[in-house]
This record gives sequence, C-alpha cells and structure tokens, in this order.
Amino acid sequence: MSELYYATSRDAERAFYEAFQRADLQQMMAVWCDEDPVICIHPMGPRLDGRAAVSQSWRQIFAGGSPMRFSLTEVSCTLDERLAVHCVYENIDHGPQLGQRSQVLATNVYKSTGRGWRMLLHHASPAVVMQTQAEEPHSTLH
Amino acid sequence: MSELYYATSRDAERAFYEAFQRADLQQMMAVWCDEDPVICIHPMGPRLDGRAAVSQSWRQIFAGGSPMRFSLTEVSCTLDERLAVHCVYENIDHGPQLGQRSQVLATNVYKSTGRGWRMLLHHASPAVVMQTQAEEPHSTLH
Repeated sequence: MSELYYATSRDAERAFYEAFQRADLQQMMAVWCDEDPVICIHPMGPRLDGRAAVSQSWRQIFAGGSPMRFSLTEVSCTLDERLAVHCVYENIDHGPQLGQRSQVLATNVYKSTGRGWRMLLHHASPAVVMQTQAEEPHSTLH
Repeated sequence: MSELYYATSRDAERAFYEAFQRADLQQMMAVWCDEDPVICIHPMGPRLDGRAAVSQSWRQIFAGGSPMRFSLTEVSCTLDERLAVHCVYENIDHGPQLGQRSQVLATNVYKSTGRGWRMLLHHASPAVVMQTQAEEPHSTLH
C-alpha cells in the first residue's frame, strides 16, 4: 500500500497530524513503528508504552468526537540516516465550531525502517508563554 | 579536559543528572551540545531555544537552592551511531530534608559529536498516574 510508505520523517509527521485531524485510527496506527517499542505521552497524561496502549489512547481520543484542526509552527528537526527528532508547536483549533485555540509542545521521534519512516515516540505537553527573567521558571519541580 | 568527554549517551545522561543534583551550572552546560541548536522544556515551562536561554534557565533553577536527588526508572533508549533518544522517569526527592517525592517524564536526546555525546534536547513534563480505561485520558487537549 504505497500510501502508507513515508519517504521522509516530514511525510510521516504530515500523516500523523492528518490522521489526528481526521480521527482516523487506522491511519494513525499506520504511522507508528511496528518493529520497535513505541512510547506516547499525551499532554498531562501517563507514559504509554507499546502499540496496544498507544492505539487504545487514540481510540479514546477519537471517540470523544471533538473536531480539531492543527497547524505546526517553529518546527525544529535534527536527523541522521535512521533517526529524526522533530520539536514542534501544535496550534490546535478545537471545541464547538473550532472556536478555541490551544498550544501544545511536542517532541516527535521517527525511525527509518524497511517500510519507510515511522513514529517511535510522541511526547506532548501544554505550552505556556515565555516568562520574564524576574519570574521563577517553575514551582517545585525543575 | 577528559572528564567532559562522554563516550556514550548514557555517560552524558549520568553527567546531566549529576550536574542537576549538584546545581553545577558549568558541568550542566558542558553536557549540552555547543554545535547544534539545543532545546530545553522544563515541566510546565516554555520551550527554550539555544544555549543562552537554556543556560539562563538552569542558572535560575540552581539559584533556588532547593536540594534535589534523582533516580531514573523505566529508561527506554533508541539509538544509532549519531543520535540517541532516552525516555525516562525522573524520581525526584526534593523540598526540606528531601522529604517530598515527585515524578517527571523526560525525553532526552543526545548527539555524538567530535567531543563525545552531548545533549540536544530535554523535554520534561509532570508524570501522572495511569488512568483506567473508563476515564478520559485528558480534558480538552489531546
């Protein structure tokens, strides 16, 4: 199935967010690696290890039925022949009539496999605005 | 300075958490790559791009003076010759007499450089307990 071959990590990333936007579980799981252990951390969620847990989480998210539209900004990529690390801002329009906007910070790791580039890790957390130097950068945790 | 050469990504990771525990800014910044763009995201903090912003954040954290002791669990590593991705639980004893325990999820990315393995990215977010299937995995964000 040629449409499931991602020639670059950017192609895999595009497919990931398309699947997310469409709530397409089959396409979403086609983006994830099926040879190596995968890890997914949704914003403020637990660490999910393995395809079964990751698939279950997307099934729950997509069952929520809330439409989402993504645009990515400040994409920073580091890659070699076999691994790619993308750090992105996810700008998400969601809620009724897509009237709310939220921002999420995501680190996405992809691996080049015999079946194209696939996602190994998605670590997402809420984005916050930059603090001034006079403010504490955090509360009790680092 | 041989002590600043990290032969593996695990060596660099060890040095990172030692510097963190000791509040040693010089050692901390020696772990970070100085050739490529670096990114640091502290728990619930903004994305910090570049050595200057990253260094400033550690200076602020270390100035807080709160002792911290780290142990890492469930370390998951993927690496090739030039890039390594570690996903870890940071178990942190902190507060007066190290009487509080917190858990942070971190994705740490390292690169093999001419001067050994160095940190490229640290993405940390608060760890939460695993939810049951009956619960929603999140609120409004994915």
